[in-house]
Amino acid sequence: MSTLMNYSKDKLWQIEQNGFDQAYLGKTEAIMALGNGYLGARSAEEEAYISETRDTFVAGTFNAFDENEVTELPNVPDMWAMTFVFNDKPLNLTFGQVSAYKKRLNLKNGELTRDFIWEYDGLKLKFSFRRFVSKKRLHLLMSKVAIENLTSNPVTVALKSGINGQVSNEGSQHFTDGEKGLMAGKFIQMMPMTTGSKIQFVQTVEHRLSVENSQRPETGRRAFFMNYDFELAGNGKVEIEKRGNIYTSIDKDVDSHELKKLRAVAVDELQAIQTLTFDQLLLESGEEWDKVWRKHPIKITSEDFRDQIAIRFAQYHLHSIMPAHDDRMNIGAKGLSGEGYKGHTFWDTEVFMLPYFTFTHPELAKSLLTYRYRGLDGAHKKAASNGYSGAQYPWEAAWPTDGEVCPVWGAADIVTGQAIKIWSGFIEQHITSDVAFGVKQYLDVTGDKTFEIEKGYEILLDTAKFWTSRLEWNAETGLYEICDVMGPDEYKEHINNNSYTNYTAHWNMTYALQLMEELKTNSPELYAILDKKLDLSALTEAILAKVDKILLPKATEAGIIPQDDSYLTKTTVDLQKFKSADGVDGLFHVYNLEQINQMQITKQADVLLLMLLFEGLFDEALKLKNFDYYEPKTTHDSSLSLSTHAILSADLGKLEKSYDFFNQAKNIDMGEYMKSSDAGIHAASLGGIWQMTVLGYGGVRMVDGKLRIEPHLPNEWQALDYGFDYQGESISVSVDKEKMTLTKADDGNPIRFSYHQHEYTLQNTLTL
Amino acid sequence: MSTLMNYSKDKLWQIEQNGFDQAYLGKTEAIMALGNGYLGARSAEEEAYISETRDTFVAGTFNAFDENEVTELPNVPDMWAMTFVFNDKPLNLTFGQVSAYKKRLNLKNGELTRDFIWEYDGLKLKFSFRRFVSKKRLHLLMSKVAIENLTSNPVTVALKSGINGQVSNEGSQHFTDGEKGLMAGKFIQMMPMTTGSKIQFVQTVEHRLSVENSQRPETGRRAFFMNYDFELAGNGKVEIEKRGNIYTSIDKDVDSHELKKLRAVAVDELQAIQTLTFDQLLLESGEEWDKVWRKHPIKITSEDFRDQIAIRFAQYHLHSIMPAHDDRMNIGAKGLSGEGYKGHTFWDTEVFMLPYFTFTHPELAKSLLTYRYRGLDGAHKKAASNGYSGAQYPWEAAWPTDGEVCPVWGAADIVTGQAIKIWSGFIEQHITSDVAFGVKQYLDVTGDKTFEIEKGYEILLDTAKFWTSRLEWNAETGLYEICDVMGPDEYKEHINNNSYTNYTAHWNMTYALQLMEELKTNSPELYAILDKKLDLSALTEAILAKVDKILLPKATEAGIIPQDDSYLTKTTVDLQKFKSADGVDGLFHVYNLEQINQMQITKQADVLLLMLLFEGLFDEALKLKNFDYYEPKTTHDSSLSLSTHAILSADLGKLEKSYDFFNQAKNIDMGEYMKSSDAGIHAASLGGIWQMTVLGYGGVRMVDGKLRIEPHLPNEWQALDYGFDYQGESISVSVDKEKMTLTKADDGNPIRFSYHQHEYTLQNTLTL
Repeated sequence: MSTLMNYSKDKLWQIEQNGFDQAYLGKTEAIMALGNGYLGARSAEEEAYISETRDTFVAGTFNAFDENEVTELPNVPDMWAMTFVFNDKPLNLTFGQVSAYKKRLNLKNGELTRDFIWEYDGLKLKFSFRRFVSKKRLHLLMSKVAIENLTSNPVTVALKSGINGQVSNEGSQHFTDGEKGLMAGKFIQMMPMTTGSKIQFVQTVEHRLSVENSQRPETGRRAFFMNYDFELAGNGKVEIEKRGNIYTSIDKDVDSHELKKLRAVAVDELQAIQTLTFDQLLLESGEEWDKVWRKHPIKITSEDFRDQIAIRFAQYHLHSIMPAHDDRMNIGAKGLSGEGYKGHTFWDTEVFMLPYFTFTHPELAKSLLTYRYRGLDGAHKKAASNGYSGAQYPWEAAWPTDGEVCPVWGAADIVTGQAIKIWSGFIEQHITSDVAFGVKQYLDVTGDKTFEIEKGYEILLDTAKFWTSRLEWNAETGLYEICDVMGPDEYKEHINNNSYTNYTAHWNMTYALQLMEELKTNSPELYAILDKKLDLSALTEAILAKVDKILLPKATEAGIIPQDDSYLTKTTVDLQKFKSADGVDGLFHVYNLEQINQMQITKQADVLLLMLLFEGLFDEALKLKNFDYYEPKTTHDSSLSLSTHAILSADLGKLEKSYDFFNQAKNIDMGEYMKSSDAGIHAASLGGIWQMTVLGYGGVRMVDGKLRIEPHLPNEWQALDYGFDYQGESISVSVDKEKMTLTKADDGNPIRFSYHQHEYTLQNTLTL
Repeated sequence: MSTLMNYSKDKLWQIEQNGFDQAYLGKTEAIMALGNGYLGARSAEEEAYISETRDTFVAGTFNAFDENEVTELPNVPDMWAMTFVFNDKPLNLTFGQVSAYKKRLNLKNGELTRDFIWEYDGLKLKFSFRRFVSKKRLHLLMSKVAIENLTSNPVTVALKSGINGQVSNEGSQHFTDGEKGLMAGKFIQMMPMTTGSKIQFVQTVEHRLSVENSQRPETGRRAFFMNYDFELAGNGKVEIEKRGNIYTSIDKDVDSHELKKLRAVAVDELQAIQTLTFDQLLLESGEEWDKVWRKHPIKITSEDFRDQIAIRFAQYHLHSIMPAHDDRMNIGAKGLSGEGYKGHTFWDTEVFMLPYFTFTHPELAKSLLTYRYRGLDGAHKKAASNGYSGAQYPWEAAWPTDGEVCPVWGAADIVTGQAIKIWSGFIEQHITSDVAFGVKQYLDVTGDKTFEIEKGYEILLDTAKFWTSRLEWNAETGLYEICDVMGPDEYKEHINNNSYTNYTAHWNMTYALQLMEELKTNSPELYAILDKKLDLSALTEAILAKVDKILLPKATEAGIIPQDDSYLTKTTVDLQKFKSADGVDGLFHVYNLEQINQMQITKQADVLLLMLLFEGLFDEALKLKNFDYYEPKTTHDSSLSLSTHAILSADLGKLEKSYDFFNQAKNIDMGEYMKSSDAGIHAASLGGIWQMTVLGYGGVRMVDGKLRIEPHLPNEWQALDYGFDYQGESISVSVDKEKMTLTKADDGNPIRFSYHQHEYTLQNTLTL
């Protein structure tokens, strides 16, 4: 365990690593990743290290390596590396003396900097690296380095820099070796194409050096570099700027996807900004970031200043990975910051990240849900292939029409050598009601009638249609069951009647019934259109026939809602010793998955998540009993678990426990554990940080379609300021230990909400 | 230019590099490559370097990355790397103090060793690495390292070692990510498969450590490692052995290609050698190498002791890349020592390497020619696709049935960005007569009637059939021409009536005619079989109708055979300044290929090669004139050029010039130029070293099917001992400045040969 992360009370926009360790490159590569939703890049160092993971991704450009692999977001030919050799010694910070090392991400404007002094074998050089991905010009990558010679001896410098297509996704190569060209004498261009999905890329790079140099182009297989040789005078300084852009044939912001045109667009863009400096381009990008920060700024007054950094860290990453430019794309479980989960979209979006966008950037939430609407065909295919009707959403989603992209086989059991089957794609079916839940929440919060009419109803009805077909009749009990599934708790495979799954399916169907009745009455035209698509009368009939006979697990005498048919009959085990371990491996050193399957051990919130999302269904006493029952049995091995527990425990008055969960969640990526982010940041957990802050401590909640605001700050927080959009109105909230003040513009519609069982109306300002 | 190569008078079996330079890793990776014809591996260091090329190849396992790329020999998941970390510092010789560095290849037994002392930050460690690829057990790879702590302080050591499938051919990945397994608790297994050709690989690794350690398996995508942690006591020593093997589903030496069986065979082999030590396994491998060295040993008594090393270097590599185990495979232009030329077979085999095998290991020569026989179908396809009949051999060959695998498009012109078309596959047609020439020489030297009957006649007739269909009638001249070709001189594209091409085609047809007449008379049954296959009566008729009307370029008044129709009309330029440059790039800094096309500049022997291979066609005076004309116009940019010039100039009495060529050829791989072997050793040039020695200075030659032995030692050589097989007899020759002594076993057949226009018969010993 290293202690290389450094946070400062005076730098609440800053993530800093204050020492270099080649064993922990993955940490800052991921948590300091750059992105603008169009493209994202891990912040791998300019100089190469054996243990690096050098990734650049362009959202939506999925490709499958071969027929045995599912589609994944391909690692694009690298444009960030710069190979420096000083007096025949390659820059390598593992060796020599490194001092004043600071690698920093400025969350406010998305600028990455890295400063240090390197001494080796008579060399003493001061480096200052800067980078950003433009939030204004989505295709643009900017990089700059200043090198100062701190000795009086001249140093010979060799720099090799360009585009390197020999990178891959851990050895899986997704690109053909495309054409290469040197345009206008200075723009290096490479034109790789994805092998299967045939997406054409155009990557262009330009270098600017502040010193006279001899230069030599070098092309190779999948590579195009420029070599620069120059002398760095004693006590001299040199600046090198590298500008690049990426265009693809699925871009919506270009007129033509013809290769020739794409190439011209790329060169034209770099030509157009010739007179703009690095700082000017950074400034205009920062102005775009400011729009994020000005929308509902969050201020946390806490004993731990890192809480404020954490919410900014969360928002920074959520926006850097949000494909705001294209509703055919969604957010991957690791965003654009790593190869983990292959860039695929999970329920993480609807249950953990979408609420942030729904409450603060509804236009982005709409884009994410439009992606699900575009995914209906794939969901139909999945349902049909399993013998069901309606829309069964894929557990893992890539390009919306791809359908299920969850790998069927995972890593091999190293003892038997047999690949382990991944069941999630087959039996983790709650994703379908999660999507419906996300749509419902979006509609409730925004009141977006257009989306509801054009897409929302259809998703809600089509998913209900799936569930209706999915139910299994049990003649013995006279009930409809849902057997052989996996709930949110992935430690329990092949179980029957998972409460989360059954309750949410029941809700999905009940709500569809209600919608169909409303539609028939109020919007007969729309009803007719949807009826033609979905056969609504048959659906109504089927739901009516089944909905009241769905097995909804009831509380035991002790008040415990069983997680599934068999959970409560399993043996229990004391998990305390595993919870205190750093990683989550401890448990698996003692038990294997099969054994854990037979114990009351839960990976993440399952019954408790149900109680949070559908809080109106259960009373507080019942929630408390279940919290006290399930939480000690939960390992929180999934980063998705903590926010649910934090919010629920705050609701239940367990503020200390809640803040403990908040801290754990905060530290998943930002913390001292240097290996936790290797495969990428934990996007759902970042959504969770916002949820804990605003929905949990800020107390904003939609209950049965109605707004409730009931803050409960943790003891460590003196005050919290936040805001959200609701029904087209922008609401600001200031909370401290004594009171809550709500503000909105006077000229909008009045907003009704509840606060501790009382109804209030907000016109402009209200203090409670 | 570095001077890291070191040769010693006392170590005539040794290639040594006596210093480490990370900029020149490619040199020793290639020239110290290990191989046994089944598999070959570049000798990349155990510790990784950014600039390394870490390749392992298994002969014949060709695969194409995608439809835009031709098949190539895929880089197999690496089994050689060992990642060491000492007190948190990874082993990296670019930094710290490296002393007593010696990397050595023992040509006699194929053992690679690397010894050095590394000091860094308080560490002082002595390393001794050893490796070999077994020549007895073709699947076996052996590696061992001893590390000694030269300080009294204990050192913590972390070692990560296993199988890494994240390697590729410069970014092109040829393998699926296969199953992984840990067998019998200690054998790491990975089962990748080539993506297109579906060749199943099984790779197995075992580690043995001499010290107590904690171990942890680690699987990843395309990777399976073991992690070992241990302490190296002050002044302590540790030994680590890594054993591995590779099996594939095209192996002929296993009973079943079923994956399960292959896996068992691999584990069984490692189990079976559990009690054998590294040294014992090296010894038995060395005994196999001894068989090579005992067959016709060559002794060169020269003023430059490196001449003796050079011939051993050539023989070592020729055997390490010769797929003696499988006649479906041939030798690539870079053998198994690099990705250059993709493992493809060219005319390099028949014209440059085959003579070595024909004269000294005829059973291997037969295997190489059987490969060509197996390639007849591909050759038919190529001929048919070009509108010709018969067998047109591919310019580049991979798996025998693949047909032409010469890439159509090469690297892009970096200015225009347009890919440059590679014409060789279309118009470098002389390969077809080169193959026929190789067959004829093999039959003449060995008298192998079985091969002649089963395969030889067919190749010779089928190739003649191609040429007969290839000829173009020129009504104006009343001659048959061969237009739009490229001769051996690749600086002249799209030329008409290249002398080398026309003469050899004419020979191929003439010889076929002679064979058909003989067959008809002497072997009517075989004639009938071949007639059915090839329609010999039609072929006879067609050849008779055309053969005497083929344009065979005649000498000018000055006695110059024109290289082609237009060569002699082109402008001339003084090449002297380009010849003295280190690389061959100099010329291209001044002229581009198009300009060179318009000048009398020749890349490599063309007319002169014709005069060497068909020496009976031209008298000595003519040869001399042509040598004096063409040689000054030849850049020798191809490594294939030097041996031809060396032999021819020795024939012509230009012994100093000849030895100068010999020296240049010797230094292509062994010399001081540290970048020349980056893409792999120059296999044809190695064949050339043997040809210069035995055919050139030893004077052994087949002229019109008859043996001639006329040594002419260079001035620097005092004596030469060599041997060869001829018509089933093993002949030894001792040459010095005064005399030549020939020896063969008394009980064999007498051998007739000519020596300076006189005929002799060798029964047992003869001194001339």
